[in-house]
Amino acid sequence: MQSVQFTAETSSDGVRERDFLIGDVPGVLWSPASAADHTPLVLMGHGGGLHKKTPAQRARAFDTVTTWGFHVVAIDAPGHGDRLRTTDDDRARDEMRQAMTAGDKERFKSVSISYTTSLAERAVPEWQATLDALQELPPIGAEAPIGYGGGVSMGTAIGIPLTAADPRITVAIFGGGFFVYESLLAAARQITVPVQFLLPWDDEHVDRQSSLTLFDAFASTEKTLHANPGDHRRIRWIGLDNEFLARHLRPSGLPVS
Amino acid sequence: MQSVQFTAETSSDGVRERDFLIGDVPGVLWSPASAADHTPLVLMGHGGGLHKKTPAQRARAFDTVTTWGFHVVAIDAPGHGDRLRTTDDDRARDEMRQAMTAGDKERFKSVSISYTTSLAERAVPEWQATLDALQELPPIGAEAPIGYGGGVSMGTAIGIPLTAADPRITVAIFGGGFFVYESLLAAARQITVPVQFLLPWDDEHVDRQSSLTLFDAFASTEKTLHANPGDHRRIRWIGLDNEFLARHLRPSGLPVS
Repeated sequence: MQSVQFTAETSSDGVRERDFLIGDVPGVLWSPASAADHTPLVLMGHGGGLHKKTPAQRARAFDTVTTWGFHVVAIDAPGHGDRLRTTDDDRARDEMRQAMTAGDKERFKSVSISYTTSLAERAVPEWQATLDALQELPPIGAEAPIGYGGGVSMGTAIGIPLTAADPRITVAIFGGGFFVYESLLAAARQITVPVQFLLPWDDEHVDRQSSLTLFDAFASTEKTLHANPGDHRRIRWIGLDNEFLARHLRPSGLPVS
Repeated sequence: MQSVQFTAETSSDGVRERDFLIGDVPGVLWSPASAADHTPLVLMGHGGGLHKKTPAQRARAFDTVTTWGFHVVAIDAPGHGDRLRTTDDDRARDEMRQAMTAGDKERFKSVSISYTTSLAERAVPEWQATLDALQELPPIGAEAPIGYGGGVSMGTAIGIPLTAADPRITVAIFGGGFFVYESLLAAARQITVPVQFLLPWDDEHVDRQSSLTLFDAFASTEKTLHANPGDHRRIRWIGLDNEFLARHLRPSGLPVS
């Protein structure tokens, strides 16, 4: 098993931020200044073309740490952030750009799906290795409840097969805003943990029905669909159940502050 | 203008409950034990076949009064609760029952739509007369912010044309679980106030797509769709934004207790 190598540490606003490597996968762990043992851990996926530490993601992580006292971890997806892209990744990205420029929606969709599928296949074992390594850290340990808090888009394309494969994840936030494909629906049908599903109601490129089909597929008895107008890149979420993760990860369900 | 005639008054758990008549329409007003002037007013519609003071509706009203300090008003829909049914109402209900027994879904749908349309046409002016009369009461007055808090089903079939017609209503909760028809979509397209829309994801009789089309129709820039698994009669709502009405009716947005 690969262990966590911390490479940098800073602290601000009561949040400890530690960059790390697990093998060659770079990640970041945000924690309360002083965390009790077995404090819950939230995994945050990032969107396509983005990385583990975008300002929006960092703000969301800080909010989770300071409001709930949880740990939050993010890693760069394959070929994203500080990671090298393979020749195949570069080719897929070129093809998506060309298809977009040519207005060839069908081609854009098919390349996007095969690229996303490939990213998710690589990312799932990386997330599992991350969990293995973090569970070796005493303040987290094997008993810390774990939730997937990745938002819409690629974070969900990775999070669904991860949550289906890994029973350590006991609650998950997913979302629409990308092309749904059959193997993803198959993974969703295996998921039984509580799911909150965020749907941008108006997406420029993606058919709304495919996201509704995805929500339909979760086998979870507790699942909530939340939709607001807007495209997934510009959406302003209103009226979200912000206590969803906390309610499931921390039975007392009360905010820290 | 018809004024409010109070016919009975009780108090329990800090909530004042007053039955009233406005003309021949019976209603009930739930209020805090002592309400400041211009305290917000929430209108609660009830479902088909039910009435103004079902245990569930009463519990919801008590919760709104004690949590937010608002007034809540409910009236019996035409032919419901303490009100007489017309011959046409009786005929429509008989026809719906017969269609249901015969398993004739198309006939059930068409009779249900024409009956609901007729109820809504009669209920809208009754709600407006109720607002007129309540605004004459000093602790409510013309300045009290007004929201429509009626849930799914018939409460929405009445609430949508009411909200479209009456600019005094500045925020609304609607929901699916009934047959959507063209004049209702037309009314929804005129609504621009913030809308929270509750969708029972699995309805025995009603096509889900029709409810999604209805949500689509609202012209509101702020609208939120919230779906949970279940039929509208048995659904357990989870992760609702319970502060939606309060946020819009009371700018400070803080709970009373």
